[in-house]
Amino acid sequence: MRKYNVAILGATGAVGSRLIDQLAKSTIPVNHLELLASKKSAGKPLQFKGHTIKVQEATPDSFNNIDLVLSSPSSDVARKLLPEAVKRGATCVDNSSAFRYDTNVPLVVPECNADALKLHHGIVANPNCSTTQMMAALEPVRKAFGLKSIIVSTYQAASGAGGAALKEFFRQAQEYLDHKPMEHNILPVGSQPKHYPLAFNLIPQIDRFFSNGYSREEWKMIHETKKIMLGDMNAPQIKVNATCVRVPVPIAHGETVYFKVADKSATADKIKELEKNAPGVTLLDDPAHQVYPMPHYAEGHRDTFVGRIRPDLEHDDIFDMWVVADNLLKGAAWNTVENGEELVKRGLVRVPKDYYVKPGVNHQA
Amino acid sequence: MRKYNVAILGATGAVGSRLIDQLAKSTIPVNHLELLASKKSAGKPLQFKGHTIKVQEATPDSFNNIDLVLSSPSSDVARKLLPEAVKRGATCVDNSSAFRYDTNVPLVVPECNADALKLHHGIVANPNCSTTQMMAALEPVRKAFGLKSIIVSTYQAASGAGGAALKEFFRQAQEYLDHKPMEHNILPVGSQPKHYPLAFNLIPQIDRFFSNGYSREEWKMIHETKKIMLGDMNAPQIKVNATCVRVPVPIAHGETVYFKVADKSATADKIKELEKNAPGVTLLDDPAHQVYPMPHYAEGHRDTFVGRIRPDLEHDDIFDMWVVADNLLKGAAWNTVENGEELVKRGLVRVPKDYYVKPGVNHQA
Repeated sequence: MRKYNVAILGATGAVGSRLIDQLAKSTIPVNHLELLASKKSAGKPLQFKGHTIKVQEATPDSFNNIDLVLSSPSSDVARKLLPEAVKRGATCVDNSSAFRYDTNVPLVVPECNADALKLHHGIVANPNCSTTQMMAALEPVRKAFGLKSIIVSTYQAASGAGGAALKEFFRQAQEYLDHKPMEHNILPVGSQPKHYPLAFNLIPQIDRFFSNGYSREEWKMIHETKKIMLGDMNAPQIKVNATCVRVPVPIAHGETVYFKVADKSATADKIKELEKNAPGVTLLDDPAHQVYPMPHYAEGHRDTFVGRIRPDLEHDDIFDMWVVADNLLKGAAWNTVENGEELVKRGLVRVPKDYYVKPGVNHQA
Repeated sequence: MRKYNVAILGATGAVGSRLIDQLAKSTIPVNHLELLASKKSAGKPLQFKGHTIKVQEATPDSFNNIDLVLSSPSSDVARKLLPEAVKRGATCVDNSSAFRYDTNVPLVVPECNADALKLHHGIVANPNCSTTQMMAALEPVRKAFGLKSIIVSTYQAASGAGGAALKEFFRQAQEYLDHKPMEHNILPVGSQPKHYPLAFNLIPQIDRFFSNGYSREEWKMIHETKKIMLGDMNAPQIKVNATCVRVPVPIAHGETVYFKVADKSATADKIKELEKNAPGVTLLDDPAHQVYPMPHYAEGHRDTFVGRIRPDLEHDDIFDMWVVADNLLKGAAWNTVENGEELVKRGLVRVPKDYYVKPGVNHQA
């Protein structure tokens, strides 16, 4: 059995620590693991399967002899370093948005479009967290009945804005309860001029705005959905509309998803049956007994939780559902590792071009 | 000028205290004010325009010589006492759901259907909080362009579940920050068997569920919208779909509203212009400068805040907006008092049948 030299790029963040954990629990046979991050984290000791591994500064040469890169740095770092990894023969699964919209880069939620993995040229992209969970929930419906349109409203957790934002949010919550003014320096978007408290509030801005009034997060949900489901980020066959809102929840995004199917033989019961048997989905749908997905259930789990499936009362081809998933796991680390597992399973991790040139490194140990 | 003997029924709750405050700031000429509540609150001293008024136990005879009742008790109490008030000649504006769906009872958001007030037979109903703010925001669009369908997802504050729920929510937030287990005995619905923490969570249940999978809150939004906009709670001309979610915010509900217009000459700019000039609406819509409605802005204000108005990217007759309002003011106390103001302005407060029989009470002082 081939074993893989794996590098985790961006190993010290909230997603990075989960990448290490998900890799440890995965089916990927690991020969050697490099943990890579920025210079300031170099030397930091982290744990992997009971071994201590010191974080290395990520440089182009960090990827010499690496087979598989699981990556969650900033887009700028991904843009700079992943081509270097590819040049050195590695196959990368990247969680940043740097390469998602390149036609040469498959954008993959394994439950949905794992076959697209075979089109990779060294980089596979992970979708945005809010898109990923919606794809896992809607794919069984698309496959069985076809989809004509999707309208989604998100309830997105603070951790989606990064570790510093999450810390700010918790500090604000305590300040509010202590009747103190809430400090706000990061949320909604660190790089934007205005900041607002998220604690006990709702902020209808995730990422910056385009001139058409949509936020970049909303743009991502619209175009990533099309690329994942139809292979083309501007495909007109499925119409998508999204509104993204940051809510005072630490982990796990909620989404109300309203969707129109092509095949009118669809019923809520049939959709529930599909979701019950769908890979990566846990159906929690028994309103009479107050059973439905909530962030407190989803946190720490790989699955996408689906519930509140019901028909629109005035259209026989329209349905509603409520979808919740851990944005740091299904929305990031787990989907990345899951893509890595699929690449391994399908033999799609490239053999580095210098594989036989450096016999000292035993990739197949 | 006619002055009115006013009674506030349910004077001691979160909405009750706001009814007193909104009445004090209103244009209703008050001759005499009775503050009514359950027996256990009787004798409690409350303030109105610098005067101390003691709460009285609400009984049928409390409404003798009352012209106008502003009411926010439980539905059961409303059902029992308001017919007694009507029998005694009073005109009632009721914030409970007891009479909303009676064909003889107008359901009124003054910015939207004030003319329906003239159809009252003693009782005017206030809509559900989540419906009210959506009506204030959508009426300018309906009037100018017609509406074909509405899809709404709500982000509803804890205070909508009552004062005890709000207190529980704040206690849970502190418990969570202290890493203690969160006590949960009330939310999402006090009378239902299961309870979940709301702090740092999302609960997709407001009120109990019907067998078709919709919650009663969702049912209300669908049928109240039809009654307010079309005069018939089952009117098919405007299709409505709603998903209602409780969010960890104390006061002010958010709503993503996706709507289809009849007249395709509508544009986002025209809709913004309408909202800017709409009564009871404050337009906060400048995404480039991070200006949009948030609960922290809306809390304590009478207006409905509207922003993020933009066109759907794939349909020329569909638009999105984000609507936020103080659920205890526009969603309850202020809309009740505003209905009272309209009744007064239009001469629709009935003259009690025993008006001239009891000359000792000077209603016109």
